[in-house]
Formats: sequence, structure tokens, C-alpha cells
Amino acid sequence: MAENRTFAREVLVRFGDCDPAGIVFYPRYFEMFNNLVEDWCASGLGTSFRELHEVQGLGIPTVSIQTDFVAPSRLGDVLRAELSVLETGGASITVAIRLLGENGAERVLATLVLVLMDLKAMRATRIPDALRARIAAFEPAEQSDQER
Amino acid sequence: MAENRTFAREVLVRFGDCDPAGIVFYPRYFEMFNNLVEDWCASGLGTSFRELHEVQGLGIPTVSIQTDFVAPSRLGDVLRAELSVLETGGASITVAIRLLGENGAERVLATLVLVLMDLKAMRATRIPDALRARIAAFEPAEQSDQER
Amino acid sequence: MAENRTFAREVLVRFGDCDPAGIVFYPRYFEMFNNLVEDWCASGLGTSFRELHEVQGLGIPTVSIQTDFVAPSRLGDVLRAELSVLETGGASITVAIRLLGENGAERVLATLVLVLMDLKAMRATRIPDALRARIAAFEPAEQSDQER
Amino acid sequence: MAENRTFAREVLVRFGDCDPAGIVFYPRYFEMFNNLVEDWCASGLGTSFRELHEVQGLGIPTVSIQTDFVAPSRLGDVLRAELSVLETGGASITVAIRLLGENGAERVLATLVLVLMDLKAMRATRIPDALRARIAAFEPAEQSDQER
Repeated sequence: MAENRTFAREVLVRFGDCDPAGIVFYPRYFEMFNNLVEDWCASGLGTSFRELHEVQGLGIPTVSIQTDFVAPSRLGDVLRAELSVLETGGASITVAIRLLGENGAERVLATLVLVLMDLKAMRATRIPDALRARIAAFEPAEQSDQER
Repeated sequence: MAENRTFAREVLVRFGDCDPAGIVFYPRYFEMFNNLVEDWCASGLGTSFRELHEVQGLGIPTVSIQTDFVAPSRLGDVLRAELSVLETGGASITVAIRLLGENGAERVLATLVLVLMDLKAMRATRIPDALRARIAAFEPAEQSDQER
Repeated sequence: MAENRTFAREVLVRFGDCDPAGIVFYPRYFEMFNNLVEDWCASGLGTSFRELHEVQGLGIPTVSIQTDFVAPSRLGDVLRAELSVLETGGASITVAIRLLGENGAERVLATLVLVLMDLKAMRATRIPDALRARIAAFEPAEQSDQER
Repeated sequence: MAENRTFAREVLVRFGDCDPAGIVFYPRYFEMFNNLVEDWCASGLGTSFRELHEVQGLGIPTVSIQTDFVAPSRLGDVLRAELSVLETGGASITVAIRLLGENGAERVLATLVLVLMDLKAMRATRIPDALRARIAAFEPAEQSDQER
């Protein structure tokens, strides 16, 4: 049940992700986060970044992010990247992202606040109800039950 | 006086830093942070990353980072990147980084915890006294006075 | 038959790959090339980059590359990336890479010369026979027939 | 005299540019090329990428590029990046880029064909005469003399 409420993808640690110490160069983790959010929009919420940007004129920039690098990842590691929704506000979505190594060992933990933006006006805009309902499917079960 | 305690560099926002919305793709800010830490080591602390990694067998990975993206930056902006030391522990250094736009307007604010690592043993190692003294020069005046 | 001699993968054009003009920032294509070569080693030749670098002490740097950017690619495009072997020398492998858009339209065409390197000696080293046989499976049918 | 006809900048090889073998990850060289072209436009030709894209609605995408990686570069190397113009066509500019290490030793050599594009029409557009004259200042002395 909780499984269904988490969006997950596998991420291969590639040669170009790694630094001279042989571990992931940390700015690359943020590209992995952005890719995960991109995949979540397309596959989890049903709206690709292309549709969002080019058709709807909307963006979802990250306004803040807290990240703990728990353990290093190395070339060839296959990480499990998980996203779940912690909170949905008027225009903002707070998501938790976890990157896990073998046996589910924590590698990177992050909390991101995303905001839905009208790209022309360049200001925050209220999350439409249809999108809000789809986001709620990735909130913990109890929380989204209360909201209904 | 406080000026001397902040390490600063100019950063040009380049074409390759920007996304289809015309603003900096946020993972790029973390490369700017890493470049600033690299320049601080070389010019502020007197030990380049090459010297640190290849001669001394040491690294200073980032173990946690809190970032607020206050306002977007655009192609061609020249940002002022500032680093100051908030706290120095046994093996860790907590630094504040600020990226500022025109007239000193805040664009990105971050707090990073760096840890000195022995790259062979792959574990934290105590900051040597000589290095510690040089780091103290970037702490707020009162704090480093107390420590002396 | 020819199909089996080409190594192919799908590549999604992501938000972080695109520039302010909304098309792929061209240095990103070279990361796609490197990812394809990495996947080809692991899945096509049976030796991952991690195995190659960390166990065998070998690398396969690119020594030259000719690239034509035939048509732009946009956010959300799914490209077909194809690799085939043009020629195998003593230490070198010449490969052709094609990135194709919808209906097989050419987007990017490249010819890369890779060289097998002994990473400790930092010099070219002869491709071992076992690896050479596996590479030959990606050469055009006639050519590899002649070589046998 | 020939000196004046070459546009040059220093490029520091940073931690994030290097791969697990401790040398520059080759896609990073193409970012260095793009940065050099960007600096050449702004400082050499008098038109920044921002001005070009946002005010004039023009871009100068790279349509083909031939690159030879002559020798590796390592963390902390300071490269000299040089650009000169080989040929100017109706809409195209062919430039040579050289990255040099200590004592002028060749590291990377490239020939790029750039095309001036009208970004709205998404097609090549003739280089205006004023820009053409400024470009000619970076052609070899004899050649640009003939053209006058």
C-alpha cells in the first residue's frame, strides 16, 4: 500500500557522474533529483515537462532543498531513487527524495520544496484541482485521507 | 574588517548554465558552490584541490547542504559568490555561501557542512592545526577571537 | 542481420539537457555518446566500465571525434542512439554513432576513435583477443567475415 | 600581429571536470569550447550571447565539430584556450580552437563550424556586414587582406 504512494526509478551511476575520488560528484545528484521529478511529472502525474512548459506555460522550479549525503556512491552502482509527497500547499509541493544503494542502504536524503509557476507572469500560481488530486496519490495514506 | 573574513569571487552565468526557461538550471548552482570551495582552498587556505587530493591524500566532501533559491538568475548575469565560515569542528567545517545579483540582491543562500576525509581510509580525519588557523581567518571576528 | 550488428539504446532528452533556445546544449550530446559507449561495453561487450577501470586497470579514452549536428532535438524527444564498429586496429576502435529522431530522421552523426589504455602506464595497449572477438560482432557483416 | 588575431582565455581544470581516471571527462572540453565562443562574442565581437539571443533573436549553433584529444589534462592544470577564424561564409563561421598546456603543448585541437541562425524562423541568416567586419579581425592577416 505504502509502495503505491512512492514513485521510484532506478539510476545507474555513470562514468561522467564520478569525480577523481571515484565517487559521485555531488552536483550530479541534483541532476538525478531533477530527472526523478521530471519522470514523476510525466509518468506519475500524467503531464510531461514539455507539455507543462510549452503547452501550459507552467514550470515547477525548486525553491529550497535540504540534502544529506549519507554515504558515497561509486561508478556502476544502481541506485533506487524514490519520491514521495510530504505536503501540498496552495502553489507549493514538498517532496522527499531518497537514493538507496544495495539492500536499501541510504545514500542521499533530500527534502525539496517545488512551486508551480506561471512562466509568463513569473509568479507562483495555485495548483489546479485535477493536478492536486493526482499529487495526493503520492502523499502518505493517512494524510491524503484526511484531506479528502 | 568583516570584508576580509569573506572569500569572494565573481561568477558569470553562462549559456550552458541556463535551462529552457532562460534561468539557471539549479544543479548548476552546486557546481558554482564547488568551484567556490575549490578557489577558497587554493587562494584562501593556500592548498589547491590537486595538492590536497594527490599529495596529501585528503578530500573535503560535502556531507549536507541546505539551499534556498531566493530569486532566479539569467544568462549573462554576473553574480558575486561569497563564502564565510560559520563553525569549525574536529573534522568538519560549516560554511555559508551567498550568491548575489546586482546591488547585492540575494539570489541563492546555502549552508554546507564539509568534512576533511582521509581518502585512503575513507574516513573523517582531524583538521590539522596549521589548516585550522587558516580556516579561522574566515570565521566572524568575535568567534575566532574567542577561540584563540 | 545488420540489426544485430548495431548496439542501440533509447535516450530521453531531459530538461537539464536543453539550453535557453529550448534545444539540446551540444556538449550534452557528448555525454550521451559516452553513456552509449558505457552501455555498449557493459551489455554489448560484457565488461562494465567499473570492471574495466577498477579490476583490469584499463580505460578507453576517446582520442578523436568528428560530429555533425544535422537537426536540433527538443525537450521530451526520445532519440534512438545507435553504435556500430567501423574498424578495429591494434589498440584502437573506430565507432560510428547515430542519434535518430522520429521516423529515423538523423539528428547527430559522429565517428569516434577510442583507444584501449593501460591506466597505470598511461599508454595504449593491444586489445586482447577475447575482447576483439566480441567487438567484431558489431562490425559490418562482410568486414568481420574477411577478418576471420 | 598574429597574436592580435587570436582570441585567448585561461581555463582552469576544475575538480568537477575530471573523471575517475583523474583527467578531464571529454564532454567537458565542449563546454570549455562553448564558453570560449561565448567570451569571444562578448569581448572579441562586442555582442554578448544575452544580447544576441534576447535582443537580436539570433543564435550561433555549432553545426559540425572535429576534435583531436592530443594529450590528457589533469585537475589544477591551467590551459590556454585560443580561438581564431579559419573562414567566414554567408551565414557560417569556421573557427579553430586550441587548448594548450604548459609550454604551449597541445592538449585538444578542434575545428568548429558555427552558423548564424534566426531563432524565430529557425533558419540560417546572412552575417550582417558590421559583425562580418569584426569577425574578420580574427582571421589570419593575409586572408582577411585579400577579402577586403
